[in-house]
Amino acid sequence: MSTLVTGIAELVTNDPTRGESPLGLIPDAAVVVADGTVVWVGSATQAPAADIRIDVDGRAVVPGFVDSHAHLVFAGDRAAEFEARMTGARYDGGGIASTVAATRAAPDDLLRRGLADLVAEMRRQGTTTVEVKSGYGLTVEDEARCLRLAGEVTAETTFLGAHVVPPEFAARTDDYVAVVTGPMLDACAPHARWIDVFCEPASASAFDGDASRTVLEAGRRAGLGLRVHANQLSAGPGVRLAVELDAASADHCTHLTGEDIDALAGGSTVATLLPGVEFSTRSPYPEARRLLAAGAAVALATDCNPGSCFTSSMPFCIALAVREMGMTPAEALWAATAGGAAALRRPDIGHLGVGARADLAVLEAPSYRHLAYRPGVPIARALDLPG
Amino acid sequence: MSTLVTGIAELVTNDPTRGESPLGLIPDAAVVVADGTVVWVGSATQAPAADIRIDVDGRAVVPGFVDSHAHLVFAGDRAAEFEARMTGARYDGGGIASTVAATRAAPDDLLRRGLADLVAEMRRQGTTTVEVKSGYGLTVEDEARCLRLAGEVTAETTFLGAHVVPPEFAARTDDYVAVVTGPMLDACAPHARWIDVFCEPASASAFDGDASRTVLEAGRRAGLGLRVHANQLSAGPGVRLAVELDAASADHCTHLTGEDIDALAGGSTVATLLPGVEFSTRSPYPEARRLLAAGAAVALATDCNPGSCFTSSMPFCIALAVREMGMTPAEALWAATAGGAAALRRPDIGHLGVGARADLAVLEAPSYRHLAYRPGVPIARALDLPG
Repeated sequence: MSTLVTGIAELVTNDPTRGESPLGLIPDAAVVVADGTVVWVGSATQAPAADIRIDVDGRAVVPGFVDSHAHLVFAGDRAAEFEARMTGARYDGGGIASTVAATRAAPDDLLRRGLADLVAEMRRQGTTTVEVKSGYGLTVEDEARCLRLAGEVTAETTFLGAHVVPPEFAARTDDYVAVVTGPMLDACAPHARWIDVFCEPASASAFDGDASRTVLEAGRRAGLGLRVHANQLSAGPGVRLAVELDAASADHCTHLTGEDIDALAGGSTVATLLPGVEFSTRSPYPEARRLLAAGAAVALATDCNPGSCFTSSMPFCIALAVREMGMTPAEALWAATAGGAAALRRPDIGHLGVGARADLAVLEAPSYRHLAYRPGVPIARALDLPG
Repeated sequence: MSTLVTGIAELVTNDPTRGESPLGLIPDAAVVVADGTVVWVGSATQAPAADIRIDVDGRAVVPGFVDSHAHLVFAGDRAAEFEARMTGARYDGGGIASTVAATRAAPDDLLRRGLADLVAEMRRQGTTTVEVKSGYGLTVEDEARCLRLAGEVTAETTFLGAHVVPPEFAARTDDYVAVVTGPMLDACAPHARWIDVFCEPASASAFDGDASRTVLEAGRRAGLGLRVHANQLSAGPGVRLAVELDAASADHCTHLTGEDIDALAGGSTVATLLPGVEFSTRSPYPEARRLLAAGAAVALATDCNPGSCFTSSMPFCIALAVREMGMTPAEALWAATAGGAAALRRPDIGHLGVGARADLAVLEAPSYRHLAYRPGVPIARALDLPG
């Protein structure tokens, strides 16, 4: 069964062969999809017939957002911690350890419901692909459980046993790394596409360059692709390690040296920026313009998680990228779609060329520019197609 | 017909006699409404019977947002101007004059549809009262027309003929003020509750202190309440004039002297902050903490308009107030509800005490803190009540 989507005031294809911009804009456009795939794209006046017709009545259509960094399998509430951080009040609610404890204690159905609610919330905001990490279980059994649940909602599952060193391994990072790269990896690899590590020598509960390399190389041997939480809190070795090991993405990139930027520009690792984190922790934003000027590929993602950033909104991240990082609305949209797809090494998503997955987002606006022009307003939604 | 709203995990009443916070929080609460009015508030376990029962299933309920500053009657699109401003590109699309030209040229139904769409969009985001200004007509006929249309959607209509000096009066501000305070006021006063003026000596197209006083005093003689666009671009005379004339609100307050803050703290004029403008123009934010420390009443509003700020989201403004202006989540919510009501001198809204209008907003969250904790996520909606 084929569906014609027409009445598109402005279509973003991300096909650079169409028009002057990398966004491959087509005005007054139509798209035909069949069996979940884009089969025709062009001017509405030239559109072929299809079984079903959807008229979006002068709205813009963009590729569904690809949110390539999210932590959605968790239990517990950290709103009070957020409030304390924002107001400078003392707070000792346990931070990430409180999420780990609540997640371990939660039955599957509670985790499954929270995960489903967040994925649905994202879809209502235009996100059609989301990567989901483990990392709040931190035992062999709980990490595997979180990844099994993540696999129920997405193909982009990431094993993040090396998120933090859990309390029971405090000051025994090497012992914990041995678990992560041994029995935990064995239990988790069947449920994961990716492995990730929080590389941050500045944090006692995270992993230094050597430990991160150990984790990533073990993951690669187990058949997993690589991703790195890199250079969030300091200009550590994460980004260069990610590029050296050809990780798909180095995420955060908040503190970069010139050498880090050169490495990203020279490699195939995407710099995934997560400006919602800087918003919600009142931190300085990454230097997107330096990355773009150097020729690095840039993605935007939410980092949706209960601690440092609980936004699920890709449009909000686009608005921040424009306001706070000086990205153009076009660069920000590209980063939130094609950039995210590159960060997941997925040629089938993040664009709307023929052959792409039929992931369309409709905007309550005539142009993609409104994603930044209308900050905080829920103007994007994933288009539900029949069949 | 009475309706019991129950299952409220956390109710914000803004009744300071309930509990320790100005928010008047009640956990595990219920509300009974009848004939559009709150008739009972308290613990769910003590709730009386009612004809209809709505269970919000563990969500928080807050007073509907009071957006006391918005410009919603307009035609035209200025997304390209926004993009140019954000990217530092040259742009000469006419700015506000382009909106004036498009608004004058638009048939009533086009303006009516745009207005209705924005009011509905606001309601979907939890706003239950919105003030709507004229100010893009700038002829006797078009200002009166815009106010008639505004009056179809809200009781809070504001005559803003003194928004800018229109092109046909360039360099003849005195002549334009004579029109505003003469035939335009005569035509508009029957359709307006308020009069407003853009007091900004730093802008050639706005109004200095003397002209602003002339406009406001004429409005008062015509029976209108007073509001002032004050101290947006420079520390001009607007705030002190507003307090001196007992205006309900001085809006923007981006550039304040110590004298301005003392005046606000000593008067009954509310300082209405519009942080979406600073977000969308990449400007420094108002000093909310200085105002609060001095004891001034602070409101938050969107300033939704096609030029300087096209957000319609009160939750977004709350998130900005917390992140960028150091307001606590409680102060920001109070400002967006009770603060807005004070800025409109409306004792019947902005709170949920007995006798208040039954304007409830439901959050997809267990606490009001999530409004700032979940930036950009559409978690608030106005509750539709039967009858």
